[in-house]
Amino acid sequence: MRNLFLSHTDVIVALATPPGVSALAVIRVSGDGAIAVVSKIWQGKSLAMLPANSFTYGKLVDEVGIIDEVVASIYHNPKSFTGQEMVEIATHGNMYVVERALRALIGAGGRQAEAGEFTKRAFLNGKMDLSQAEAVADIIHADSAAAHQIAINQLRGGISKELGELRQELLDFAGLLELELDFSEEDVEFANREKLQALLHKIAALIFDLAGTFKAGNALKNGIAVVIAGKPNAGKSTLLNALLQEEKAIVSEIAGTTRDVIEDELTIEGIRFRFIDTAGLRETTDSIEMQGVERSKAQLAKADVVLYLFDASATTLLELENELATWQHLEQPLIVVGNKHDMGVTETFPETTLFISAKQKDGIETIKSQLLSLSTGTQLSHSGTMISNIRHFEALQAAGKSLQQALGYLNSQVGTELVAEEIRESLYQLGLITGAVHNEELLGTIFSRFCIGK
Amino acid sequence: MRNLFLSHTDVIVALATPPGVSALAVIRVSGDGAIAVVSKIWQGKSLAMLPANSFTYGKLVDEVGIIDEVVASIYHNPKSFTGQEMVEIATHGNMYVVERALRALIGAGGRQAEAGEFTKRAFLNGKMDLSQAEAVADIIHADSAAAHQIAINQLRGGISKELGELRQELLDFAGLLELELDFSEEDVEFANREKLQALLHKIAALIFDLAGTFKAGNALKNGIAVVIAGKPNAGKSTLLNALLQEEKAIVSEIAGTTRDVIEDELTIEGIRFRFIDTAGLRETTDSIEMQGVERSKAQLAKADVVLYLFDASATTLLELENELATWQHLEQPLIVVGNKHDMGVTETFPETTLFISAKQKDGIETIKSQLLSLSTGTQLSHSGTMISNIRHFEALQAAGKSLQQALGYLNSQVGTELVAEEIRESLYQLGLITGAVHNEELLGTIFSRFCIGK
Repeated sequence: MRNLFLSHTDVIVALATPPGVSALAVIRVSGDGAIAVVSKIWQGKSLAMLPANSFTYGKLVDEVGIIDEVVASIYHNPKSFTGQEMVEIATHGNMYVVERALRALIGAGGRQAEAGEFTKRAFLNGKMDLSQAEAVADIIHADSAAAHQIAINQLRGGISKELGELRQELLDFAGLLELELDFSEEDVEFANREKLQALLHKIAALIFDLAGTFKAGNALKNGIAVVIAGKPNAGKSTLLNALLQEEKAIVSEIAGTTRDVIEDELTIEGIRFRFIDTAGLRETTDSIEMQGVERSKAQLAKADVVLYLFDASATTLLELENELATWQHLEQPLIVVGNKHDMGVTETFPETTLFISAKQKDGIETIKSQLLSLSTGTQLSHSGTMISNIRHFEALQAAGKSLQQALGYLNSQVGTELVAEEIRESLYQLGLITGAVHNEELLGTIFSRFCIGK
Repeated sequence: MRNLFLSHTDVIVALATPPGVSALAVIRVSGDGAIAVVSKIWQGKSLAMLPANSFTYGKLVDEVGIIDEVVASIYHNPKSFTGQEMVEIATHGNMYVVERALRALIGAGGRQAEAGEFTKRAFLNGKMDLSQAEAVADIIHADSAAAHQIAINQLRGGISKELGELRQELLDFAGLLELELDFSEEDVEFANREKLQALLHKIAALIFDLAGTFKAGNALKNGIAVVIAGKPNAGKSTLLNALLQEEKAIVSEIAGTTRDVIEDELTIEGIRFRFIDTAGLRETTDSIEMQGVERSKAQLAKADVVLYLFDASATTLLELENELATWQHLEQPLIVVGNKHDMGVTETFPETTLFISAKQKDGIETIKSQLLSLSTGTQLSHSGTMISNIRHFEALQAAGKSLQQALGYLNSQVGTELVAEEIRESLYQLGLITGAVHNEELLGTIFSRFCIGK
């Protein structure tokens, strides 16, 4: 159970590097009196006398003896990651040493940090806003160039700046509206209604535009899910293997062999694609295979792109059209691929069809380019800020809806009170993203997902 | 293939923390021009202008854009771990970021460090001797208080000091002997033969004393191997489980169930014990069980302690004496334990026998104390320096043998030449331990066992 009433100034300690055997491990200590806590187990030059942003060599000691020979780096309040007094201790990369050092630091007055507590303090001390704090976690978990780029932009305040400006414009007008409400008996109009309407239109459009980047931003951050669909024995597993260049899926000549949804990843030019092989989507009486088909349908809903594979050597145009008929309702882009073209294709298929031989590994690059151009398309469609966090998306949508509601009230002239109320809601929602508005519960939810030591 | 002709001054780079997702990762850069290399991919305050032992916040950039926001710590030659100019860069703990930063550093003129290359440079630049460099690796791999204590003592120069003093005394006398050889035609005697004899006696004794600590030192470093032996169904697996307090071994009422050699570890008061269960050592016709018995015999050779278990409720004194007869030739300490004492013991067994009930978990603490006192005994038998490295052990033995040989020559008065030769060999062997004598091949062997980044 997360404690909502933690002090934000006491001294917290945690390992900041991954556990394991290595040259170095770094222990972070932050809070009022961090230097005094470390000094209690320190042998070497006085840490209290060291200038800020400098480090020195010394020993950590406990009642048993020397824990390790280390380097301690000194940060003074407020020039540190957390905005507090901090010490970073580089020990040898050994878990026995780290655990003994952490125990000694706790014995000296420190407390084991909770997940994300260092970054939470950075936010509370104004070192970064909430979307930037979330970007710290995103950077740590980024596993592709695209995911990294989105996180770095967010860390550098891309979203903060864009939302800050929108919010300020809205705040200025909201101030005038609130003033009108204060003087409501006098029937004055401080806020020009036409200008207000134009502003709300403009801001709502920008907000929905930003919210509209979520699908692509999220796909780039988490990887683009490509479902490989098609009739049994069309060669889906062989294609997956050719794409991944390794033998992950079970390939067999018997139709319907692939029962499990196999997920694997491939990074093409910095963008991560998650390939999902599906059990053949067909009527079946085999109960184990039935489960596979059910799972495949569930996977389809999560797909960003569907790659439909058919056997070009043994399918007529009419058969293909029938197969594809059930796929026309898809929202996702559909790439139609004719496999086994090395076995001879006699039928004329639609021009957009890609022809490959998964077995011969022929045409695989064409599929990769097609996938890349689809995703680069979404990436480039919005040149500026991109959101990738569902919390931001939901807040933006709520803010946009409130503004639309406000516009509706303005049009129907139902009174300033209701308009002001919707604008307040919109401001609140936008404030949640950057943390201009926050509460301990929201922070708890966000930072508990961080790792210890961050 | 390890390159024996590496430069020791060019700029090397490596990740110094374990790979993984975490708050921080640290990249080490060392060599002539390390600061210039990092500066090429740096945005922020000039690193070249920073005072030594200070750090600053900035950005790493490559041709694509910002790699990460980081903290760079500056060490000037020779006040660093390697004795060279060094930069330590703390990035976010993300492998995409780390790999991109390493690529950029290599592009800027750095080179991926080989295993142990930082510590090797520390040795070559006189920051530590060879036994201390080896202690760095031992600290990193220490997994118990005892192993850590041995490594810390070695890092702090325990062995270096002891051997340095012995070697100096020997060197002084050797100098006199060499002088005699230079003036051999004049038949002078600079080195007093009685004093030399006494010195060689003293040093040889000290060397063998130190070499004698290896068995215990190595056991403390790598854990003390305890083989649990005994007839089938004596309750060996049950005892192992009781010791480890979990169900690792297969326990059954059928004699001879345990076929595999199961190894598990338990730390008692900072000392690590590795428990090895054995297949019942008896004649058998079951081929699978035969293999188990063979393996058990091999394990016995590796044991530091043998714990012999018998069923005290169903064994006569004569039977026990017969069983133990085959164990009398053991070099290792033998602890004899009578199991199942809860089922009634009518026979009178030797006084040193421990009685337990593995099933009832009764008497387990007594066994632990006995093991601990055996190992603490060896630990305390040598109050000073303890060696735990087989390379040191072998060099000490060779040095000691040469001194004994020299003493033999002195006694038989066969001439100064031969005595001097043996003393030279002894000095060479002692020098290998601290690295006063070294060659690139020896260093290669030692440092290639280190991890990258150390």
